[in-house]
Amino acid sequence: MVKIAVYGYGNVGKAAIEAINAAPDLELAGVVSRSLEKGALGEIPIVRNIDELKGVQVAVLCIPSRQVPDVAEELLLKGISTVDCYDIHSQVYDLFTRLDAAAKKGGSVAVTSVGFDPGIDSAIRGLFEAAAPKGLTYTDFGPGLSMGHSVAVRAIPGVKDARSITIPVGSGLHRRMVYVELEEGADFNTVATQIKADPYFVHDETHVIQVDDVESITDVGHGVTITRKGASGSAHNQRFRFEMSIDNPAMTAQMMVSVARAAVKQAPGAYTMLHLPIIDLLYGSQEELIRRLV
Amino acid sequence: MVKIAVYGYGNVGKAAIEAINAAPDLELAGVVSRSLEKGALGEIPIVRNIDELKGVQVAVLCIPSRQVPDVAEELLLKGISTVDCYDIHSQVYDLFTRLDAAAKKGGSVAVTSVGFDPGIDSAIRGLFEAAAPKGLTYTDFGPGLSMGHSVAVRAIPGVKDARSITIPVGSGLHRRMVYVELEEGADFNTVATQIKADPYFVHDETHVIQVDDVESITDVGHGVTITRKGASGSAHNQRFRFEMSIDNPAMTAQMMVSVARAAVKQAPGAYTMLHLPIIDLLYGSQEELIRRLV
Repeated sequence: MVKIAVYGYGNVGKAAIEAINAAPDLELAGVVSRSLEKGALGEIPIVRNIDELKGVQVAVLCIPSRQVPDVAEELLLKGISTVDCYDIHSQVYDLFTRLDAAAKKGGSVAVTSVGFDPGIDSAIRGLFEAAAPKGLTYTDFGPGLSMGHSVAVRAIPGVKDARSITIPVGSGLHRRMVYVELEEGADFNTVATQIKADPYFVHDETHVIQVDDVESITDVGHGVTITRKGASGSAHNQRFRFEMSIDNPAMTAQMMVSVARAAVKQAPGAYTMLHLPIIDLLYGSQEELIRRLV
Repeated sequence: MVKIAVYGYGNVGKAAIEAINAAPDLELAGVVSRSLEKGALGEIPIVRNIDELKGVQVAVLCIPSRQVPDVAEELLLKGISTVDCYDIHSQVYDLFTRLDAAAKKGGSVAVTSVGFDPGIDSAIRGLFEAAAPKGLTYTDFGPGLSMGHSVAVRAIPGVKDARSITIPVGSGLHRRMVYVELEEGADFNTVATQIKADPYFVHDETHVIQVDDVESITDVGHGVTITRKGASGSAHNQRFRFEMSIDNPAMTAQMMVSVARAAVKQAPGAYTMLHLPIIDLLYGSQEELIRRLV
């Protein structure tokens, strides 16, 4: 049994607990949360500090991306392996090198940027490129809720709550449908203009719609289509397509938990979805997995 | 530069040469062929025995599946790593264990069952299962030419030449459209009855069509759709889909050549597509690949 602690108790943390409980070879050591009251999850231990839990091998970090670097580094130096869903694409490599150093020092394993995208999408893009090294890959997200864009809108003055929905328009371009609930007295046109000028939205076709109750339109489903058209050797027009339609926090949490299983099998250092043997993510004997999946 | 020998000069062997020549970090050491005349490929060395080539690190085996076990084992014991496209699914695990022993003895690496299916499809099935461990995966092949089924038909008395086309009917079931060119004097109905009773066809809806010239309908394109509907933790109805439409020998050869690059980075032993880190298949520095693909 691999002993796993879940860090954070938002949508992803809750789903990680479900994924661990559904796996025959994984054991939930407890939940690390600053806000959750003790006893709130029945017999599952809730702690403020991971040191209160015994024998944790892997911590699954279901926390905001910005908190990941410091939290992961501290755990890795303690010898506890980590899996995170860090999703700031432009910073992944810097985080990877930082966690690699910490993991090698602590004799632990860091797997970073696991989940949807980066995550399963990263592995798919890599496989497609191995099959057709020359060509173009497009990643088209949606339709679905973008957490990052929603957070950006909520930071704009006059916005009480918001959800930004990503609509794929093809070739890696996206339309943003932004549903806002306004503070009393806020001016819709002023808010809409600010949203459209925000760096998160300025390059995309963006529509802002006022609603009375953002909660009533909330659905955490999401999707993606990845297409590659390329050449294998001298054979052109090779076509590859991946589509996924999912409960996003549940898929993200499940992939992190599958990766936690793989983490304990790797040598100390940092990894991404591109670095892990797929077989290590799966439950079962090597013989059974080869016979069934290869 | 990784020095690679290509074994065999059929459709897959020819495409492997193209894939090696298109890669900046791979070098073609020569072609091992029993039938090809020396000088037939210009400056590319053609040899009867791989010992005539110097410094070969990996042999890409573009030969019939039944020849793979003996040829691969001999090379592995000599310390030459191998990549094969062995496709008899029911025997993959036995071959894996046999090659694992030989590779460990020879200090070499065997990667078995690389290409289309087994191959990229095996990796996709594994990834889908990591994202949604409970559920059903269907692999639907086609439309496209099945080499194995065509060979089976050609073995039937009265058949001069044949092509068996696989048509997907969903849920992992397939229709077989068999185009036959008959020997003079052969009776069509007798041949058709024998084809339908053959173990390759007896479980599938099979149609036999007589044609004058099988060569004129030949197209080596193929395709597949892999779908999984499953549960991530307690979230059901998670949907995953992979589609590919390709020149089959070219994709198979390209994947074998990408895997040859990975082979030299692994510890001695046997591997499948489920065992290799995807990043090892790709050309480029770790930093560039992480920044671009993760």
